[in-house]
Amino acid sequence: MTLVRLQIAVDKNVFMSDFRLTDLAKSLPATVPFVGPETQERMLKRPFLARLGANESVFGPSPKAIEAMAGADHWKYGDPENHDLRHAIADHMGATASNIVVGEGIDGLLGYLVRLFVGAGDAVVTSEGAYPTFNYHVAGFGGVLHKVPYDAKDRENPKALFSQAAKVGAKLVYLANPDNPMGTVWTGDEIKGFLDLLPARSLLVLDEAYLECAPAGTSPGILWDDPRLIRMRTFSKVYGMAGARVGYGIGHPDLITAFNKLRNHFGVTRAAQDGALAALQDHDWLERVQAQIETARLKIGEIAKSNGVQAIPSATNFVAIDCGQDGAFAKRVLEAVNDGGVFVRMPFVAPQNRCIRVSCGTPQDLDHFAKVLPGALAQARSSAFRV
Amino acid sequence: MTLVRLQIAVDKNVFMSDFRLTDLAKSLPATVPFVGPETQERMLKRPFLARLGANESVFGPSPKAIEAMAGADHWKYGDPENHDLRHAIADHMGATASNIVVGEGIDGLLGYLVRLFVGAGDAVVTSEGAYPTFNYHVAGFGGVLHKVPYDAKDRENPKALFSQAAKVGAKLVYLANPDNPMGTVWTGDEIKGFLDLLPARSLLVLDEAYLECAPAGTSPGILWDDPRLIRMRTFSKVYGMAGARVGYGIGHPDLITAFNKLRNHFGVTRAAQDGALAALQDHDWLERVQAQIETARLKIGEIAKSNGVQAIPSATNFVAIDCGQDGAFAKRVLEAVNDGGVFVRMPFVAPQNRCIRVSCGTPQDLDHFAKVLPGALAQARSSAFRV
Repeated sequence: MTLVRLQIAVDKNVFMSDFRLTDLAKSLPATVPFVGPETQERMLKRPFLARLGANESVFGPSPKAIEAMAGADHWKYGDPENHDLRHAIADHMGATASNIVVGEGIDGLLGYLVRLFVGAGDAVVTSEGAYPTFNYHVAGFGGVLHKVPYDAKDRENPKALFSQAAKVGAKLVYLANPDNPMGTVWTGDEIKGFLDLLPARSLLVLDEAYLECAPAGTSPGILWDDPRLIRMRTFSKVYGMAGARVGYGIGHPDLITAFNKLRNHFGVTRAAQDGALAALQDHDWLERVQAQIETARLKIGEIAKSNGVQAIPSATNFVAIDCGQDGAFAKRVLEAVNDGGVFVRMPFVAPQNRCIRVSCGTPQDLDHFAKVLPGALAQARSSAFRV
Repeated sequence: MTLVRLQIAVDKNVFMSDFRLTDLAKSLPATVPFVGPETQERMLKRPFLARLGANESVFGPSPKAIEAMAGADHWKYGDPENHDLRHAIADHMGATASNIVVGEGIDGLLGYLVRLFVGAGDAVVTSEGAYPTFNYHVAGFGGVLHKVPYDAKDRENPKALFSQAAKVGAKLVYLANPDNPMGTVWTGDEIKGFLDLLPARSLLVLDEAYLECAPAGTSPGILWDDPRLIRMRTFSKVYGMAGARVGYGIGHPDLITAFNKLRNHFGVTRAAQDGALAALQDHDWLERVQAQIETARLKIGEIAKSNGVQAIPSATNFVAIDCGQDGAFAKRVLEAVNDGGVFVRMPFVAPQNRCIRVSCGTPQDLDHFAKVLPGALAQARSSAFRV
């Protein structure tokens, strides 16, 4: 899809340069932050047997959420204020609705946030190998990314991030806790302590997409009105509604209000608003999924261990498996696992790219994974000998 | 929602200025292009009896689309390529998938398009009183809007628009055909003729949101690859899926590819993609809705006539009713109609704001409207005397 159809362009003597894009837009590549599993399936010409690459929740949304989405008045635009959902979220967490902005997933909200803060040349700090969609937004608005490596325990390194932010005068600092793609985590108290090191004029973007499957106390116990940070959460992960595109930001009311300057006010679908509201209220389903995630994490650990490789302890709905060699080796493992019909992904940069990343699946999904992993490792090792 | 919570700001000694927004973002108001009917209902403390203000399709989506959305795998992210839907749309209209970009409604696509083309100070041309969300995007990216009045027949004026575009060196020219809010229309051949007057370096944004209820031949019969324009269409109007947020743009493949530089690749929900695909294939439902719209337009015309006011002939799923006096008068009519429990809207600027705009409703919806209109007109007239 991203190929420029040169043939047509030449035939009609029309070139991209004839369109008067902004200089910034001209400079951007037409890329996708992530290739979707559907694209891979079309290339492979067969469906995956297990879909464990995008940290979706195979356990699905609450049946009440499914029912609410099915019964939504699709002919009506969604409420542009997301009023009921914002108030329910606020009640749920002891905040006020003025602390909450609802948007088209964390992806959409990160785009708005970056657009609010980042202009040409503005500095932004993130970890080397962290969420590519955030980087995509920063590049898309002309910002300059400064990247800091993970620490020796495969954790993002808040101290180093905040120190770098001070050095470059960063407007935004991105930190996912728990982390994606490694699944590692800091406690909320640790994050709170690190905040003292955050430069006064930098805003922390704390991505808590995986919070609902992390230990209690993973979010810093500070007031929602704290102007130093905005927290991002989502219905895409543990709530099982990735396809419905609904996330929320929690922060100072002035910051939350600023989203109204530029967000797509009618952007969250009516079904998503109804579904998220129902999902939020179904505590039993949430607990059930949390237990299923815990079981799956243990199972992925066992599968790794029985294959002589090591699962990294995870506070998320996925597990990074250290394949024990370098990125090239892990990439061969990944490709063989994918070829075997199991969709997984892997970290982008060294040394985290010694791992493959496996989302929590049903027992059946993980059986598929258990079946393909030994052969994938063997194949990767034998290719290594051939090189 | 758009109120800055000054109390909290003062209490904590935190002010908006402490957030390092870009200068552009600082300059933007935190406004909503349209106040939603839900907001009005919360203010009125009762639901509307008829929802005829947002040109939604009260006739709903195809039952097959409803079924497809209900059965969607909500736990999976939507296909970021929108592959199946793009190909189906292309087949439907004899284009290729490389001519089609699918996005989060025309609103979302207009935002991406403006972002591709418009930087600080770039000129854009539209009609005085045309679609506010387009203007919102232009302002949001620092563009400068140049507005041209409607012609004497309440039509947007392509000749004047294109002449203005030449004068100011516009990057984009916006034209809705059929028009919103007036419902007037040019034939496709007329549009095609006007295109010769479009400056070589301006791109025409032809918003065809209401095409499916306009006469055959309303879209210009030129090739999809024509680099002079991009056409925007939607599943929000005649297809009855406003709440699902799915629209598409049709244009030159190079232009379509450029959207991949900055769109939210996973932004269209899985249910919306499934639903739109089913809707596109249900020709019977489309024809049925087209007939219902035609019936409703006639009925609105009769209601107007029997109240001594005049419906403007419409090629859309709404009818502008000329209330026969000025904007202040029409606003009083509008408010009385709303107070009577019927949600309608009105054009923003003179002289089009002598009208109220009524979406095509069910017979029951229009009965409500017929009941409240006489009193609303009488009330507006008596207030005029009181002034």
